[in-house]
Amino acid sequence: MADSSESIHELYDLAVVGCGPAGLAAALNGTIRKKKIILFGTDFCSPKLHHAPKIENYLGLPNITGEELRKKFLAHLQEVKLKVNQNKISGIYPEGENFTLQSRDKFFKARAVILATGVNTVKPIQRELDYLGRGVSYCATCDGPLYKDRKVIVLAYNRDGLEEANFLSEIASEVLLVPLLKEEEAARVRLNEKIKVVKGKAMGITGEMWATGVALEDQQLTADGVFIVRESVLPDQLVPGLKVGSQGIEVDRWGATNIPGVFAAGDCTGAPYQLSKATGEGQVAALSAAKYLDELKSKVKEDRPLATV
Amino acid sequence: MADSSESIHELYDLAVVGCGPAGLAAALNGTIRKKKIILFGTDFCSPKLHHAPKIENYLGLPNITGEELRKKFLAHLQEVKLKVNQNKISGIYPEGENFTLQSRDKFFKARAVILATGVNTVKPIQRELDYLGRGVSYCATCDGPLYKDRKVIVLAYNRDGLEEANFLSEIASEVLLVPLLKEEEAARVRLNEKIKVVKGKAMGITGEMWATGVALEDQQLTADGVFIVRESVLPDQLVPGLKVGSQGIEVDRWGATNIPGVFAAGDCTGAPYQLSKATGEGQVAALSAAKYLDELKSKVKEDRPLATV
Repeated sequence: MADSSESIHELYDLAVVGCGPAGLAAALNGTIRKKKIILFGTDFCSPKLHHAPKIENYLGLPNITGEELRKKFLAHLQEVKLKVNQNKISGIYPEGENFTLQSRDKFFKARAVILATGVNTVKPIQRELDYLGRGVSYCATCDGPLYKDRKVIVLAYNRDGLEEANFLSEIASEVLLVPLLKEEEAARVRLNEKIKVVKGKAMGITGEMWATGVALEDQQLTADGVFIVRESVLPDQLVPGLKVGSQGIEVDRWGATNIPGVFAAGDCTGAPYQLSKATGEGQVAALSAAKYLDELKSKVKEDRPLATV
Repeated sequence: MADSSESIHELYDLAVVGCGPAGLAAALNGTIRKKKIILFGTDFCSPKLHHAPKIENYLGLPNITGEELRKKFLAHLQEVKLKVNQNKISGIYPEGENFTLQSRDKFFKARAVILATGVNTVKPIQRELDYLGRGVSYCATCDGPLYKDRKVIVLAYNRDGLEEANFLSEIASEVLLVPLLKEEEAARVRLNEKIKVVKGKAMGITGEMWATGVALEDQQLTADGVFIVRESVLPDQLVPGLKVGSQGIEVDRWGATNIPGVFAAGDCTGAPYQLSKATGEGQVAALSAAKYLDELKSKVKEDRPLATV
C-alpha cells in the first residue's frame, strides 16, 4: 500500500486520530513543537466542512465557504509537510508507556494520542456496550482467530462488513451475515458461498456473561460471538476504558482524558460543534500532549539512573 | 466624546471587555447569534498580535505576520459592522439581573459579560488585595467623594494617575502623590499646586482593618485612603468576587466563571497563551453567554406569569 512506509516499526511521539479542524490544528501545533507526528484520516479530511455553504465566524476569514476553508486548511498542512495517513484506526491500546494503534492487520506505535474523531453519530444497538470485550468485536482481523471452528454473526453496516464476513468464513465454522446496508451497495461484494445471509433489523445483543446472539425483529440468532462493522467507531470502543459522557469524550480544560497520554479535541468532546472551538481545542490538546511527552522524557531519565551505571 | 452615543442608557445583551483575539471572536459570535453587543477595547485591539513577527499555527492562514492577522481580524469585525468602544472599563458590578460597567463617570448596562482582558501583567504591591473595598481604590471618579475633606495617597503608574490626583485635590483636604511613571511622561501633566509630590518606590499598603498608609522604601506615608492608578486592572478588582486562581480567571470548559452571567476567554483564563485557544474560547464563551441569555429570557417569562394577568 502507498502509505505502508510510514508505519508499523516507527515509534511516533504523537498519533492524531481524525483530520477535521481539531485534528488538523492538533497535528499542526504538534509539528511546530517538533514532535514526530502521525495523523490518521481520509485524504478529504472534513466532509462536514466541505458541505458548509458559508462560514461567518472563523475569525480572520470572513464570508468564506466551507470548501474554500477546507482547501486552506489542507494547504496549511502541506506548508508544514504534514501528510494524512489513510489507515482507519479501529483500536488504541496501551502497551507499556506507549500506545498501539490498530488498523486491521497494521499496527502503529505512539507515545501519546490525540482523539479528534468528530461528532459521534453511532448509536449502539441494545446491550452492545455491555458486551465490549465479551463476545462483541469490531475487527475480524484482530479477533477472528478467536473463533476458529466456531460460529459467528456479522452485522454489516457497510461493504467492509461484507469483506469481514468473507474473511471470517475462512476461519469460523459458520457465519451468519446480517446485511444492514443498501442492497445496491451489498450487491457489489461477492460473498463466500459458506456465508448464510439473514435479512432483518438488528435490535440488540443477547447473552448472559458473554454475547451469544443477536435479536432481530422477528427472530433470534445464536452464535459464539458477534462482529459489528460500521463506518464510525464509538470512542469507548476505540480506546477501551475511555471515559465518555452523554456529551462526548470527557476532557478537562487542557484536553486530557481519564487515560494519561490520551487527549481529545473538537466535536468528539461535545458541543458546541464549532470551528474555532475545534481548532482551539486541537491546539490546546497538542500543547498538553507536548508537555506530557516532555515530562515522560524527564521521568524516563529519572527512573533509569541505575541502569546506566 | 465620539463614542458617547453608544452607551449609558441602552441595555446591551452582552458586554465584551477586551478586543484581543478572544474578545473579537466572542463579539463576532455573539453578533452572529443576533445578540446586542458592546465591545470595549482600544481601536488598535491587539498590540501583542501586532508585535508577533510570524504566526505559523493559526490554521488556514500559514506564514502570516501578526500585523497582517490583526488587520484581517479587524476587517472581519467591519464585515459584521462591529465597533470597538474605547472607554476603559474599571469596574463591573451586578445590579439586579444585569451588570453595570463603569468607565470613569460613564456607565454601561448589559445582561451578561465576557471578560477577555488578556494576560494579567499587573503585580499587586504587598497587601494591596487585602484592602480591596477597604481603603484601596482604583477609581477617583467613583470613590473620590468618599474622601471629601480627608487625606489621600495616590500611587500613579501612568499619566491618568496624575489626572486622578488633580481631580482628588479638588475634593480631599490633602493629596500625597507618588509618581511611579517615567519623569518625561510625568512632566506632561501640570499638577494642581495643592498636591504634595513624594518620590519613592511603593512597597506595600499598611493599616489595620482599613488601608491607612503606604510604605515607601525609606518612609511611611499615612492617609485615610489610597488610590492606585495603573494601565491594567486586576480581574478580581474589575469584578468584585470573581474567582481568580494562580493561572488566571477560573472558568469551566464552557467559559463560565463563578459569577452567573460572567464568562471569560483567552489569555486571562490562563496558559497556553495561544491564538487558536483564544479564539476558540471566545467563541465558546459567546455561545455560553447566548444560552445564558436565552435561559434568562424564559426564566423572566416563567417568573412573571401572575404579573401579566
